[in-house]
Amino acid sequence: MVDVAVIGAGQTKFGNHALGLKGMWAESTENAFASIDGDFDPSMVDEAFIGSIAFGGGQIGNTAALLTEHTGMDNIPVRRVENACASSGFAFRDAWMAIKSGQADIVVAGGIEKMNDLTPERKRFWLGVSGDTEWERLAGLTFPGTYALMARRHFHEYGSVHDDLVNISVKNHMHGLDNEFAHIRKDVSFEKAQSGFMVADPLTLYDCCPTSDGASTVILAADHVAKKLTDDPVWVLGSGAGSDHLALHDRPSITQLIATQRAATSAYDQAGITANDIDLAEVHDCFTIAELMATEDLGFANRGEGGIFAREGRGRRNEGQVTINPSGGLKSKGHPLGATGTGQIVEVFKQLRGEVEASRQVRDANTALTHNVGGSGATCSVHVFGRDLK
Amino acid sequence: MVDVAVIGAGQTKFGNHALGLKGMWAESTENAFASIDGDFDPSMVDEAFIGSIAFGGGQIGNTAALLTEHTGMDNIPVRRVENACASSGFAFRDAWMAIKSGQADIVVAGGIEKMNDLTPERKRFWLGVSGDTEWERLAGLTFPGTYALMARRHFHEYGSVHDDLVNISVKNHMHGLDNEFAHIRKDVSFEKAQSGFMVADPLTLYDCCPTSDGASTVILAADHVAKKLTDDPVWVLGSGAGSDHLALHDRPSITQLIATQRAATSAYDQAGITANDIDLAEVHDCFTIAELMATEDLGFANRGEGGIFAREGRGRRNEGQVTINPSGGLKSKGHPLGATGTGQIVEVFKQLRGEVEASRQVRDANTALTHNVGGSGATCSVHVFGRDLK
Repeated sequence: MVDVAVIGAGQTKFGNHALGLKGMWAESTENAFASIDGDFDPSMVDEAFIGSIAFGGGQIGNTAALLTEHTGMDNIPVRRVENACASSGFAFRDAWMAIKSGQADIVVAGGIEKMNDLTPERKRFWLGVSGDTEWERLAGLTFPGTYALMARRHFHEYGSVHDDLVNISVKNHMHGLDNEFAHIRKDVSFEKAQSGFMVADPLTLYDCCPTSDGASTVILAADHVAKKLTDDPVWVLGSGAGSDHLALHDRPSITQLIATQRAATSAYDQAGITANDIDLAEVHDCFTIAELMATEDLGFANRGEGGIFAREGRGRRNEGQVTINPSGGLKSKGHPLGATGTGQIVEVFKQLRGEVEASRQVRDANTALTHNVGGSGATCSVHVFGRDLK
Repeated sequence: MVDVAVIGAGQTKFGNHALGLKGMWAESTENAFASIDGDFDPSMVDEAFIGSIAFGGGQIGNTAALLTEHTGMDNIPVRRVENACASSGFAFRDAWMAIKSGQADIVVAGGIEKMNDLTPERKRFWLGVSGDTEWERLAGLTFPGTYALMARRHFHEYGSVHDDLVNISVKNHMHGLDNEFAHIRKDVSFEKAQSGFMVADPLTLYDCCPTSDGASTVILAADHVAKKLTDDPVWVLGSGAGSDHLALHDRPSITQLIATQRAATSAYDQAGITANDIDLAEVHDCFTIAELMATEDLGFANRGEGGIFAREGRGRRNEGQVTINPSGGLKSKGHPLGATGTGQIVEVFKQLRGEVEASRQVRDANTALTHNVGGSGATCSVHVFGRDLK
């Protein structure tokens, strides 16, 4: 069966944008097109998958067609994929399957979200809809509250402490400091992150990612086409995905995400590797506790030892066992919901090709992972990438 | 490469439902599961794709996970697909590609929409968002208005007349009369349809489909699995899809849909057939003029002769050259937006297996087509099905 490579990737800066949806998509997609080494034209794209949740506060439908017609990909099959904050992780998976199916040679996967032109009330609404509505949102549970419950339970079960989360926050701010695409570029000290104002006990401001505007675009190609368009492809070694109950009370445990575990197992099996082979991982740290749990669910730390992993700095760039969130993660790079999943892949593409700022470059980066979560773990995609085909 | 069959299909009645989203999905999906002849269990499903636009008036996200957890498809990769009223046609395409890719053996494609618990204003809003927002909706153009422009132009260019549309309306109401799943089961006379009250000149009430609640579910399987689960598979012979400018003013012609033409060409080429081989077709008659144009774009009538085709009754069940909308189409069976595309496939599945009401059965039905349109033609999927693999 055909192998699939990422041959180009680009994004906008994540943050508060003056640009609207079409403008952000154009910038992101033009950056991705420009990153392709060979002789490429947008009309060569066979199919497109675009992830978004709110898409303009729900004011617009048929959005994939709107964006692709705006960027020279005329008349091709396109669709929007919605899986809460995992929308573009799944858009990427579906793009990958389109090539694997033999139906397409060059496919665009992307994501986009415009949040900062919404009223605070509508912004909260569009964030809230991704969790369980019947039992959680309408009872007043917000996302910080949901993840706070997970954190408290992890502390209780495994003896992890808030300072472990502080370590994650400080690391991600440090990683994102020199990232030109990051939303929040601040040198955050341990003391400062320790004393942030409380959002949902035990999570403070420094445990919560911002809500950003942004777009990201990734170009995938079948092996025989990839080789013509670039000398430096990044190969997709594995794609895994999973789902779970939306409401926390339906899950056997709230200190692990079954969807992540299932997605990771599939992706590793396909790639023929284990967590030990990963050099860098972009994980979905919408809250610091989410990164802590992800280090366990992805197999970087043993069950219950995510706190120790963080405490010992094992996710620090070029210092630990694996670099976790070299981009700065959702905490520093930012979180434009639907654009986050393919945004992670943009970072991995550049890291594996040695194309990020020198200060941010992960050394000897050969194998990488991306981990994109929808809601509080109802959906998850995990992808594994490599410089070389196994 | 693996061949793909539909091995089961079911739906709710389309219309005004007391059931909510979970209830409708459960009914539709249980009907689909029950239609599988062999030893089947929901845990055998590998992946799911669910089409919806509004999903509860935009009150809920992560909706595919919500529905699949509710119907025993636990922890599998799932996502919502949004392409306006073509959402579930594309969900089906993506499900088909998932099997073709070798990643899945049994995949669910479905669609769902709940419209009749929305206020009239919100209902109009969720219908309106599927067209162009910048140049059409915010300028006051509604969907009846959009299709009225197309109708007027077709009359002008080709000499078709409103009575041609009346013929389509009467035919579809006649086809849907005995369909137990249809929203509007009324024997509509030519005179009655001719004198309906005006909605958007020249389109009257009898030219416009209703907005329905409903859900539909289709089960696809790889050939080696299909043969174990049924003696009566319906094979997917071809899948085509396309897109176009959202706004009418950007298109070279507004009397044809490029997206339909592109989708049909791909599907026919894959199947190795032409329009002449189709015995029955479920086409997207959101307005009667849409069916008239579709008969041309799909190749059943020559360019400009869709009116003549309708006038001569060439789409009537067991009388014409091909049965167009044996279910009653969107006009009679109803139009629950995101559920329409897979709803068409439910009808085709039953027709090809000889399982509809005797009075509605298309004779010698071997090859069938479904045509699902998003907005005023910005997205379109066309699928071709057969009793036999070619």
